[in-house]
Amino acid sequence: MENTKSNLAGTGKDTHSLLESLSQGNYFSRLEGNELHCENVRISKLASAVGTPLYVYSKKYFTDRFQSLTQALSGCKHKIFYAVKSNYNINIIRHLHELGCGADVNSLGEMYRAEQAGVPADEIVLGGVGKSAEEISYALDKNIFQFKVESLSELYLINQIAELSGKKARVALRVNPDVDPLTHPYISTGLAENKFGIPISEAEAIYLDRSLSHIEFTGIDMHLGSQIASIAPYAEAIDKILAVCERLKEAGIELHHMDIGGGFGVQYAGENDFPVTAFRETLLDKLKHSGMQIFMEPGRYFSANSAALVTKILYLKTNGEKNFLVVDAGMSELIRPSLYGAYHQIIPVIPSGSEAKVYDVVGPLCESGDFLGKEQTIAEPESGNLLAVLSTGAYGMVMASNYNARLRPAEVLVDGSEWKLIRRRETLEQLIQNEEDL
Amino acid sequence: MENTKSNLAGTGKDTHSLLESLSQGNYFSRLEGNELHCENVRISKLASAVGTPLYVYSKKYFTDRFQSLTQALSGCKHKIFYAVKSNYNINIIRHLHELGCGADVNSLGEMYRAEQAGVPADEIVLGGVGKSAEEISYALDKNIFQFKVESLSELYLINQIAELSGKKARVALRVNPDVDPLTHPYISTGLAENKFGIPISEAEAIYLDRSLSHIEFTGIDMHLGSQIASIAPYAEAIDKILAVCERLKEAGIELHHMDIGGGFGVQYAGENDFPVTAFRETLLDKLKHSGMQIFMEPGRYFSANSAALVTKILYLKTNGEKNFLVVDAGMSELIRPSLYGAYHQIIPVIPSGSEAKVYDVVGPLCESGDFLGKEQTIAEPESGNLLAVLSTGAYGMVMASNYNARLRPAEVLVDGSEWKLIRRRETLEQLIQNEEDL
Repeated sequence: MENTKSNLAGTGKDTHSLLESLSQGNYFSRLEGNELHCENVRISKLASAVGTPLYVYSKKYFTDRFQSLTQALSGCKHKIFYAVKSNYNINIIRHLHELGCGADVNSLGEMYRAEQAGVPADEIVLGGVGKSAEEISYALDKNIFQFKVESLSELYLINQIAELSGKKARVALRVNPDVDPLTHPYISTGLAENKFGIPISEAEAIYLDRSLSHIEFTGIDMHLGSQIASIAPYAEAIDKILAVCERLKEAGIELHHMDIGGGFGVQYAGENDFPVTAFRETLLDKLKHSGMQIFMEPGRYFSANSAALVTKILYLKTNGEKNFLVVDAGMSELIRPSLYGAYHQIIPVIPSGSEAKVYDVVGPLCESGDFLGKEQTIAEPESGNLLAVLSTGAYGMVMASNYNARLRPAEVLVDGSEWKLIRRRETLEQLIQNEEDL
Repeated sequence: MENTKSNLAGTGKDTHSLLESLSQGNYFSRLEGNELHCENVRISKLASAVGTPLYVYSKKYFTDRFQSLTQALSGCKHKIFYAVKSNYNINIIRHLHELGCGADVNSLGEMYRAEQAGVPADEIVLGGVGKSAEEISYALDKNIFQFKVESLSELYLINQIAELSGKKARVALRVNPDVDPLTHPYISTGLAENKFGIPISEAEAIYLDRSLSHIEFTGIDMHLGSQIASIAPYAEAIDKILAVCERLKEAGIELHHMDIGGGFGVQYAGENDFPVTAFRETLLDKLKHSGMQIFMEPGRYFSANSAALVTKILYLKTNGEKNFLVVDAGMSELIRPSLYGAYHQIIPVIPSGSEAKVYDVVGPLCESGDFLGKEQTIAEPESGNLLAVLSTGAYGMVMASNYNARLRPAEVLVDGSEWKLIRRRETLEQLIQNEEDL
């Protein structure tokens, strides 16, 4: 289980107070008529205008989240690169860039998206265990700020391509500190058994390799995993990495920055957010003598609680002793419940005030694994009512598929009392656009 | 685990004999130079021409599979509807339709795909637990052959929409026989705790409901699940359903066909295919007095072993005691290993003859859950070599996503010594086509 399942949920009044206790609750709240709003816009109005299923984002959430992180890190030399893999809509990348974020990308497609969002190449860092020669050439050609290198063979390939094109590639090795982040196995990345990074025991020798004529080592990178709740794993890893940096310095190699990745835990069901303010003290203390700048790559931390997936109830159904709400969104829109057993709180957009019942909220796809929530307590809804699946801004839309030939949903960005369509719903014609005229 | 993992795999000679033992082995085999071919076309040639990752399908596999099923069912009145959800490329639907298949669809998008493939409306059946009013209207408007109805509330909605449009909807109730198919919980569908179907105890009363003025009951449907290996669950369910039909007949309601769904198990790692020839005896015996026609909806049974996913090795990597092959396909192309723990045999396209090692085959995505195979024994490959991920024709491409902003792969259909691109690789521009000019 990625998130702790809890019995938070559903009935009108309880939900009200519950929402307020979530970080999302300041942006998605019950205003006039007890109706769920995103900022000052009624969710039901958006569903009428754009249809369902629909992802609704709060612009202010991103703004506030960026600013509070920046504030928490005051006094600590840092630069934030938004991990676009968590939500890569170009309008969201653009907004975070305008606030001051660079972009952390992992593929040609993500580089392209960052560019289209207006992020200049010198604020883009490229990671990923499987960079193709094409991706490396593209990134060198654009002169991106830095490569995060995940293996020795990749480093040799970058060196070779840089040599051929007469360039020097700026590189941080992604070091695997072998620290257990105590999270879901699919989202832990810093253990030796994972595919990510270079074993910390081997990193030093690579930094000292003088044969890499077209590589300029500028930093050192680590990433422990996702949804990390405590400072301890970071502190342990940073100590290990600072020890490497110290020895490298003695050998004449000075690295300018340490990239600690992202992975800061967020609220899905009443947990605490990762304690960034306290984390700053740890960072400042540890970095005191190193002179290094800290890079961070938050993704989920910025995006998870920015959004709700809005879906319509199609049918109420009882099979044996189980009650189902069949809704018009499923694993094609949000695969996290199926893939990770992730918990997302589901609440009615307009509470009915009637008695609450326990429901499995399931999608329309032909697969038993297609569900959005299991055994959630929801005030008795009716067919046609809208539900909001909370905390779905990260790893929601980016993992959407056309499974069952479903059209991927629309996305809307709310800004105060205004809203803007930031992704049109897919069309039937688009489904087959690459299968015709061949 | 959906499939039994086995130690089948990898080295040149072993793979050769192994491939021959698989049903896929007659279509994907080692011909000249011990190179893997699809029918008579070298896989490496296709990879050069189209790039990787790439799904390669054998047209003859579909043909032979359809014909052997038809032959096995000789003497048994039947009609086969291809479950397009397993692979919905319009070129594949078209081929199966030309052989004689109707289409079993589950959404507006799948109806559209079937139409575009040339399947006439009177050979289309529409299932799914979450049919929207829009989908129902569309299907009535096109006059499709039949609705498979999954709940009472859906039946009322269809009746209401049919009344408004002055039509009569042909309906089979999807009955939930409460039989355990002994398969993965995500692919079992016929148990009372699942979202699918109408409890068998309630079906009779619904068939007898005279208030449904715009419904014509034409059949009865069931679907037990997927990857079912034995006849027993079908026999048990058919007995239950025939008892219902018998009582309905006495009450004056004669159903013309029984739809037993699909779910026939296929080979992934040396298992036996579902015994269709023996199944026919069971069917004939049971249907002797009923006079009903049998409908079947095989999906995976036609498509799973029709294809290989061809991927290029980017990097060899060792972390601690684990060896990794980092390849250019991952969970964005094939999510079955991550989602179901599914096993797919992975073999080199051109065996090197060198010693075999145990590898995790992982994709380029930034997620630990991104892998295609764990601990597979593969003859020592080199960076740049091609691998074939076998048995990937079903629930491969249809579940592909743009996770990590990756471009969805191309698809090629091989026919003897000829081949045809049946889906172009996605482009960077297509990634953002719905996020611009808003």
